Amino acid sequence: MPVFLNAPEPPYYAVIFASQHGGREIEFYDELMEEIVTLAVQQPGYLGLESARNEDGFGITIVYYDSLEAIDNWRRNPDHQRAKAAGRNTFYDAYKLRIAKVEDAYPDFVRDGDAE
Amino acid sequence: MPVFLNAPEPPYYAVIFASQHGGREIEFYDELMEEIVTLAVQQPGYLGLESARNEDGFGITIVYYDSLEAIDNWRRNPDHQRAKAAGRNTFYDAYKLRIAKVEDAYPDFVRDGDAE
Repeated sequence: MPVFLNAPEPPYYAVIFASQHGGREIEFYDELMEEIVTLAVQQPGYLGLESARNEDGFGITIVYYDSLEAIDNWRRNPDHQRAKAAGRNTFYDAYKLRIAKVEDAYPDFVRDGDAE
Repeated sequence: MPVFLNAPEPPYYAVIFASQHGGREIEFYDELMEEIVTLAVQQPGYLGLESARNEDGFGITIVYYDSLEAIDNWRRNPDHQRAKAAGRNTFYDAYKLRIAKVEDAYPDFVRDGDAE
């Protein structure tokens, strides 16, 4: 799901999730991720999401929220907690989770039509 | 280059670079990225790097440094500036760049040997 964020001016917050998928239960994983992303974007304070994964299973997902309170509310969501348990029990070989405050954002670069 | 960060305790800083590669000059791109990453990890204050890219060309690279000064020094590096110009002129259809302060990091999850 390559989604560029259309965010307001900083500051805002980023949940940075880096994970090594073990290649297990890919169909179940894709279904669960779709369900969880659908919920994450409905949370109050949601601003945007960016996600990428290499063919070897290493991936980064960043979800942006307007406050730490919004992140904390999402963290306590039962469906989210259920998905996290599945991540630990089944999908991931390893992951790291960080909370960061976006302090600066540069103007977006978007190529105009006459790209070489 | 899926590299998990072995960072000290927060706070530290993250340069979050999200980009849509246009599929142009992939060999040149790979060479230049290798060169630039080699330089980035040699910068004073470098802590770690995580990077992932989808098959459709959307990618996220996060480079972690111990201070805003370290990020600013790297930003002014001439080789880095040259690479950024190539990114705008040739490789990328779009990108976003953000600077964030990592305020919290959860204990790493690492699967033990008896994974199902």
